[in-house]
Amino acid sequence: MSTFAAISKAADRLAGHARCTPLLSSPFLDDIAGRQVLVKAECLQHTGSFKFRGGWAALSALTPEQRSKGVLAYSSGNHAQGVAAAAAAHDAPAVIVMPQDAPAIKITNTRALGAEVVLYDRATEDRDRIGADLAQARGLTLVKPYDDEQVIAGQGTVGLEIADQAKALGITEADVLVCCGGGGLTAGVSIALKERAPDMAVHPCEPEGFDDVTRSLSTGEICRNATTSGSICDAILTPSPGDLTFPILKQTCASGIVVTEDEALHAMALAFTRLKIVLEPGGAVALAAALFHPDALSMPVAIAVATGGNVDPVIFAEALGKYG
Amino acid sequence: MSTFAAISKAADRLAGHARCTPLLSSPFLDDIAGRQVLVKAECLQHTGSFKFRGGWAALSALTPEQRSKGVLAYSSGNHAQGVAAAAAAHDAPAVIVMPQDAPAIKITNTRALGAEVVLYDRATEDRDRIGADLAQARGLTLVKPYDDEQVIAGQGTVGLEIADQAKALGITEADVLVCCGGGGLTAGVSIALKERAPDMAVHPCEPEGFDDVTRSLSTGEICRNATTSGSICDAILTPSPGDLTFPILKQTCASGIVVTEDEALHAMALAFTRLKIVLEPGGAVALAAALFHPDALSMPVAIAVATGGNVDPVIFAEALGKYG
Repeated sequence: MSTFAAISKAADRLAGHARCTPLLSSPFLDDIAGRQVLVKAECLQHTGSFKFRGGWAALSALTPEQRSKGVLAYSSGNHAQGVAAAAAAHDAPAVIVMPQDAPAIKITNTRALGAEVVLYDRATEDRDRIGADLAQARGLTLVKPYDDEQVIAGQGTVGLEIADQAKALGITEADVLVCCGGGGLTAGVSIALKERAPDMAVHPCEPEGFDDVTRSLSTGEICRNATTSGSICDAILTPSPGDLTFPILKQTCASGIVVTEDEALHAMALAFTRLKIVLEPGGAVALAAALFHPDALSMPVAIAVATGGNVDPVIFAEALGKYG
Repeated sequence: MSTFAAISKAADRLAGHARCTPLLSSPFLDDIAGRQVLVKAECLQHTGSFKFRGGWAALSALTPEQRSKGVLAYSSGNHAQGVAAAAAAHDAPAVIVMPQDAPAIKITNTRALGAEVVLYDRATEDRDRIGADLAQARGLTLVKPYDDEQVIAGQGTVGLEIADQAKALGITEADVLVCCGGGGLTAGVSIALKERAPDMAVHPCEPEGFDDVTRSLSTGEICRNATTSGSICDAILTPSPGDLTFPILKQTCASGIVVTEDEALHAMALAFTRLKIVLEPGGAVALAAALFHPDALSMPVAIAVATGGNVDPVIFAEALGKYG
């Protein structure tokens, strides 16, 4: 079971390897939000997203024998890069299974981080079959993107840092907004904050049309999205909360907040102008919630986790063109 | 005289107010440079540039009476915002004298930070005359952008942080590259490093056509630029090194490095892609030197100060379009 103790142990293993990312702010953002806004800039984490933490926690928890055989991940995105970089640093082989129509730059980057990329045809091949065959043949350990105890523990270290950094500013009460896909980060952060900053309320934040966690929390049962593609917030499009993450979210989180794609683009432009950080749409959803959904919040301080910055330059330019 | 003791005292006054900005890195940048590259991300400082440090150091060194009367600065850029924000936090009035054809957004931002903006007509009015009259009438203290002991001391705190952060990574020898206009930051950083990391060599970095410091160091005499406009690196266009800064630079710095505008744009795009930070052209000059001028460096580690991120979205989009 995912526990505070597991997060604490993961933090020890991540020390000196993951970056303690800064908590940024701007009076201009406070004015828009009508409250103090603090932004936990995980886009500045190694590989450009918080996923490096989960990858490191998973790799560092393996036995030497498991590590020498290597790990497997399915991802064309931030999880792939996080696992690849963490595996390379642990001298562990990493095999990343990606669709062959994934953007060339993502395939190139994942390979450059030292991973072996295995491509498959979405139309004719079964990803899980390919992965299972590879795992069995080579003895690889699967690192899931969110429904994995160690991954949740690694992402939870973001929550430990938020508690410490907020306390240093004299802040113990806050709405904490987290960009939410499968819920690994949100679950980890909420476990950490329940222990270290119990007066903070964690809100999962999602894009319109992909509000499975918000609906699941509202109904008390796992709800699914109608589709898993078709939003610019590609980093956080998952079919439903996970079997491990949902019971945690249900027990620890406040209500979800849903933002539009335009609000995400607007938040990206404001992060550019006011904080000088680069966010991808899925990484800007929590900041968008803090800025544009004041009615969903009840505390004088909002802490938004800016989860990642691996964005296509064309989409970034679109955000600047619209709102820069 | 600017001394290490003054920097140390400034650091005490800045503690808890200026951000200790992170030292970022990416294996992709190391590959380009052929050495380890560390980027001191001062674009993440309050007001988007290191200038906040000098502003804070100057404001916090005033007597209560001086503070209550207020300060004056000439600037349409980063120094204006740094002084305005520092003055507001010290409850001191700030008057910023700006040309009336300065970009509207800069005027708006400076006012929003609490300063009174006094506009003048470059063609028909004398900026120094206007400032001197205001200063005398109201008893304002002038805060110069670089030729000021306290400003140099404040900027020097960047050097203290570099020494500490590098040491934590086991690094004591490095080429340190600093974007250089009038030389306030470069002077402060080099004084700090001479004391705290004497095996580091500080290189002022400048854009082509505005290499007054490089030429001055090379000849041993203050050289001037032919013009003070006409480069996208607007943040660091000054006529010549200062009367206070040049003797320091001459005594403490290694040779200057000159980069092209295209190299600055390329460095901006790589900072976007690999570090997820926003740099303005003048703030990317040192990173450009680290990446594209390996022959000018002699150590296995290059530490580049990314000085600011207050960039026009159109110029940023141009960098992404060319090199993103």
